[in-house]
Amino acid sequence: MYSFRNDYSDGVHPEILKALSETNNIQADGYGEDTFSLRAAELLKTRMGTNDVDIHFISGGTLTNLVAISAFLRPHEAVISAATGHIYVHETGAIEATGHKVLPVNTADGKLGPEMIREAVTEHHFEHMVKPGLVYISQPTEIGTLYSKAELSALRMVCDELNLILYADGARLGSALTSHSNDLKLGNYTELCDAFYIGGTKNGALAGEALVICNNNLKQDFRYHMKQKGALAAKGRVLGIQFLALFEDNLYLRLAVAANAAAMKLQSGIEALGYKMKFVSATNQIFPVLPEDIITELEKEFLFYRWEKEVNGSSAIRLVCSWSTDQAQVDNFISLLKKASGV
Amino acid sequence: MYSFRNDYSDGVHPEILKALSETNNIQADGYGEDTFSLRAAELLKTRMGTNDVDIHFISGGTLTNLVAISAFLRPHEAVISAATGHIYVHETGAIEATGHKVLPVNTADGKLGPEMIREAVTEHHFEHMVKPGLVYISQPTEIGTLYSKAELSALRMVCDELNLILYADGARLGSALTSHSNDLKLGNYTELCDAFYIGGTKNGALAGEALVICNNNLKQDFRYHMKQKGALAAKGRVLGIQFLALFEDNLYLRLAVAANAAAMKLQSGIEALGYKMKFVSATNQIFPVLPEDIITELEKEFLFYRWEKEVNGSSAIRLVCSWSTDQAQVDNFISLLKKASGV
Amino acid sequence: MYSFRNDYSDGVHPEILKALSETNNIQADGYGEDTFSLRAAELLKTRMGTNDVDIHFISGGTLTNLVAISAFLRPHEAVISAATGHIYVHETGAIEATGHKVLPVNTADGKLGPEMIREAVTEHHFEHMVKPGLVYISQPTEIGTLYSKAELSALRMVCDELNLILYADGARLGSALTSHSNDLKLGNYTELCDAFYIGGTKNGALAGEALVICNNNLKQDFRYHMKQKGALAAKGRVLGIQFLALFEDNLYLRLAVAANAAAMKLQSGIEALGYKMKFVSATNQIFPVLPEDIITELEKEFLFYRWEKEVNGSSAIRLVCSWSTDQAQVDNFISLLKKASGV
Amino acid sequence: MYSFRNDYSDGVHPEILKALSETNNIQADGYGEDTFSLRAAELLKTRMGTNDVDIHFISGGTLTNLVAISAFLRPHEAVISAATGHIYVHETGAIEATGHKVLPVNTADGKLGPEMIREAVTEHHFEHMVKPGLVYISQPTEIGTLYSKAELSALRMVCDELNLILYADGARLGSALTSHSNDLKLGNYTELCDAFYIGGTKNGALAGEALVICNNNLKQDFRYHMKQKGALAAKGRVLGIQFLALFEDNLYLRLAVAANAAAMKLQSGIEALGYKMKFVSATNQIFPVLPEDIITELEKEFLFYRWEKEVNGSSAIRLVCSWSTDQAQVDNFISLLKKASGV
Repeated sequence: MYSFRNDYSDGVHPEILKALSETNNIQADGYGEDTFSLRAAELLKTRMGTNDVDIHFISGGTLTNLVAISAFLRPHEAVISAATGHIYVHETGAIEATGHKVLPVNTADGKLGPEMIREAVTEHHFEHMVKPGLVYISQPTEIGTLYSKAELSALRMVCDELNLILYADGARLGSALTSHSNDLKLGNYTELCDAFYIGGTKNGALAGEALVICNNNLKQDFRYHMKQKGALAAKGRVLGIQFLALFEDNLYLRLAVAANAAAMKLQSGIEALGYKMKFVSATNQIFPVLPEDIITELEKEFLFYRWEKEVNGSSAIRLVCSWSTDQAQVDNFISLLKKASGV
Repeated sequence: MYSFRNDYSDGVHPEILKALSETNNIQADGYGEDTFSLRAAELLKTRMGTNDVDIHFISGGTLTNLVAISAFLRPHEAVISAATGHIYVHETGAIEATGHKVLPVNTADGKLGPEMIREAVTEHHFEHMVKPGLVYISQPTEIGTLYSKAELSALRMVCDELNLILYADGARLGSALTSHSNDLKLGNYTELCDAFYIGGTKNGALAGEALVICNNNLKQDFRYHMKQKGALAAKGRVLGIQFLALFEDNLYLRLAVAANAAAMKLQSGIEALGYKMKFVSATNQIFPVLPEDIITELEKEFLFYRWEKEVNGSSAIRLVCSWSTDQAQVDNFISLLKKASGV
Repeated sequence: MYSFRNDYSDGVHPEILKALSETNNIQADGYGEDTFSLRAAELLKTRMGTNDVDIHFISGGTLTNLVAISAFLRPHEAVISAATGHIYVHETGAIEATGHKVLPVNTADGKLGPEMIREAVTEHHFEHMVKPGLVYISQPTEIGTLYSKAELSALRMVCDELNLILYADGARLGSALTSHSNDLKLGNYTELCDAFYIGGTKNGALAGEALVICNNNLKQDFRYHMKQKGALAAKGRVLGIQFLALFEDNLYLRLAVAANAAAMKLQSGIEALGYKMKFVSATNQIFPVLPEDIITELEKEFLFYRWEKEVNGSSAIRLVCSWSTDQAQVDNFISLLKKASGV
Repeated sequence: MYSFRNDYSDGVHPEILKALSETNNIQADGYGEDTFSLRAAELLKTRMGTNDVDIHFISGGTLTNLVAISAFLRPHEAVISAATGHIYVHETGAIEATGHKVLPVNTADGKLGPEMIREAVTEHHFEHMVKPGLVYISQPTEIGTLYSKAELSALRMVCDELNLILYADGARLGSALTSHSNDLKLGNYTELCDAFYIGGTKNGALAGEALVICNNNLKQDFRYHMKQKGALAAKGRVLGIQFLALFEDNLYLRLAVAANAAAMKLQSGIEALGYKMKFVSATNQIFPVLPEDIITELEKEFLFYRWEKEVNGSSAIRLVCSWSTDQAQVDNFISLLKKASGV
């Protein structure tokens, strides 16, 4: 059965395997001090248009989030996150395991706004409560929505005002950067965030995220935190080589364009059959609301997750596309849906 | 310059890249539930001759150690380790960061014996002190020595007697299994340890360790701990495919044989020139003691670490060989040493 | 100004000071192994009608909660709490600081019910989410409400079914035990809870809570956890002597009766003037809803906390009575309210 | 039997009970914001001759150590301590439980010197090891020895040079301040330490230590850390009133003088009988080395701890005196020793 379950079901882009193969006979220093990782960091700085950031390569998203957030905060400080935030829901309490409370904020669309942050800070006003210290956002969000440049700038302003760190989880940042509704360039993130990461695992890599620390106050001793949390890869070259391959020729963006296109094609095809989306996504995850019996039909030929029960015997499902999603299978899905819908 | 610094300076074995390439177009489940990882676990069980273990693939050694040890212990329990143990010295307090004290024990050869363990337990006898709960050993040790079957069995007995978990860090387990002085088979570890890991990163893999949990009491919910510590790889197939490649045709052992052979050749060549070893190693790390001026000469053409200052202006250095160590460079090293020694 | 802010504004009951004074010249063992603490534990067991519990005296409520909960849970396990629960709101993330997520559940009256617990467990169904391991309730709740015997029994049943620990924070357990609407005896808590504590600090003691561990599985090594968290008092006699004084002659219950009576008198007096209560309290905290201008008048002569803004320019305030609340001040409060209300 | 086991075997000084009694009817704010605690802090500042410190009252020594150290350090930073340090040996891994490694340094007399600190920092030189961040000393040490002003100043200098926090555990600071060999005034500690505490529990109080934070960088948000660790006493007045009583009329120093005098009398009496001391103590703990059979005789009439086995069938024992040690019992002890020694 073909899977739309997620964007890490598929393998790695062949260019990456090729790069690993071509560099394989070269000896390299360990723990991210190899020339590949150093060059990859320089290349990313060029793409972001700044030298004033520190870049660290880490093998996965949860590990990146927990190393960064626990390094950045003092023990009594807490994280403000949308209630749908990945760290709040789907990381097995990884942040709390480092000692920090995550304060959930209910949102309509998975996005935090300045007033929500202000309110969370106002509510937590004295030493009997945790002190909000960091705002966690996902770009795009876990439900496919996107912060605009104006929205991200507004978060930056409120974080400056309230002395909060702004951290963006970019597990699918490629999808954000190449979305049709996007107005944020890579360089904007270095200006607006204190730290963020550029996700590789969900966009064609074997594994690997590039954490970018923009705020000078957060840079010191970061490699200590990585090592302490098991995030300093001995054969760090494997991460560096991948990011070189992804960014030397804009492969990273091309892969994300493909993933978005497949998802948008699915979305418009489903909408054309008269179905609504639970969330308005402009990225590589979409959330159609379908009747139960039709979902059951689709499950006979496709793998995907059910997201949430809706009224009237319908449910929202999640369909995720990747750089390697098969166009023919997108067409097959629409055809099957059409047939099942009796159209 | 050629490097004898470590066994992760080199790339990955080509068979592994080939396996990744050949499976690349197949969709797979995430987080270690893919068919490759499941098959790799089954294959390892076959190699160990038991089905009664749980196997988890994790991307690095420090991460494996910290997930396992923090999952196995209650908050007040401590780890007994040789003072040279990797977790005590070189993991940036990773175990303490999960809340557990590591109790260092001085040893002559990097190996713990039953009396040392008994003494540590006797000393920590009431609730004003931590309670020893786990014995951490490295096989081979950080200084190249090896536990024999009799020694490991004796540790098992004292751990049973004192109600301690016995955990073996097998970052270089391949080197142990194939050492000329080895008398322990892979299956013996499942009988004698509560848990141990089979290191891939230092023996030809891109990254990856196979944690084997033998004690039934330690198995429950282990994937929760992995996820919480950022150790559940989204594209888990990458780890499973590597271990399949390493164990399907005994590649793992063949690579370790090569690493050991290169190290033993270096060691005997150095000894033939009249130098002593700081530790008697039977594995892929050796520790010759050389005069300072000769070390300086060697450093002009080779990369390696200085280990410790000795008397009389000598120092011990560490030379590490890997599956891909160039035999010609081993010869070059001996030649240069000979020349520098004026022999 | 007279304070209705809380039940620890006042001093200690004179009987306790007398007991401290009378035993002052006796030498005693440290760390809770003194004869006073041992006798106090025995006395409490008699009052509870069981010998099958372990009792530990700890100096405060937050410390008791964090030692107990972190000792009882494995690292990946979480706590289910009402969103109004003290540990969720007012303990500065003390539980999260020990590594455990607290899952908030919205309630109408501060009380958890079986369905809420079942739902929280159902939602957290796999290793990408924390695993609920303990249910935290406060008896009485933070808003003055009370679990009945039927309700507590229903929680016990659902906890048994779902393999959860049931823990009751009894910071004000005296007020619960002596409430006019109470049907739970002290002994019932030992039958229905896995652990709970009998609060002294808010009922006449200098400081001190008696943690009662009922579930045998949770008893082992508990003093290690206490010491590790700084909760093993060197001069432990001070806690033991107080609990002896509180329970030898039922002083504990008499003090709570007085606190409840004062609060109920305030509540009925306020209701008689036509005001509503935000929550229906049967304990020593009450929550009248009053117009802003009247609150301002009351604040000129009394200290109390504002709880929450209501509609129509009203707010709920919190008034807390203690064992030593001055009856004349209760009357004064009602008189002033009457006057301010223009009745 | 009379106990020389420790200085918290005895009750509380009557002046303290009197102070608690006299203030008992006054309502006070909670959590250390009461007028007694505020006045006690002011009084201590006067005694130290500076206003530029923050003072917090905490109920015990282990709790004080763990709150302070975990608040002061970043996650990857470690503590340097003598191997005999209380936090290293006798606090059940309380510091490690907050995530920080404690690095033990062997010493002859329980005291750290600048070179030991320098060496520990030199050894821990890169991100694969913890980073020393704080030096923990006890004044007096756990074996009765004392840092002189010159020694403490030298520690200050090396801490300044190496960017380390200097923290002094003053569980028995009174004994240090009043020792015959002391040349440090209370005010000197504020100049030389970044933080230290003035122990009350072991010098006549019910319970209570006064943490003094001298370094401005360490002051911010400290009450959050206290609350998070369960160290913010609800009825904080109880701690403030005690410190007022201890320092208003120099009771604190007078009690320590008495404890030291009793210990010195014991020590000289034992030495007069020809016995050696294991450590040269100038404070209220002494460590005579006695033959086993004589120790057995003494144990028939006195309670004390054995410290360590010595050669020739002797052992060192520990005798501790307090403010209320009975002079007659000191005489009895010497008499019994004389008799047992057959002198």
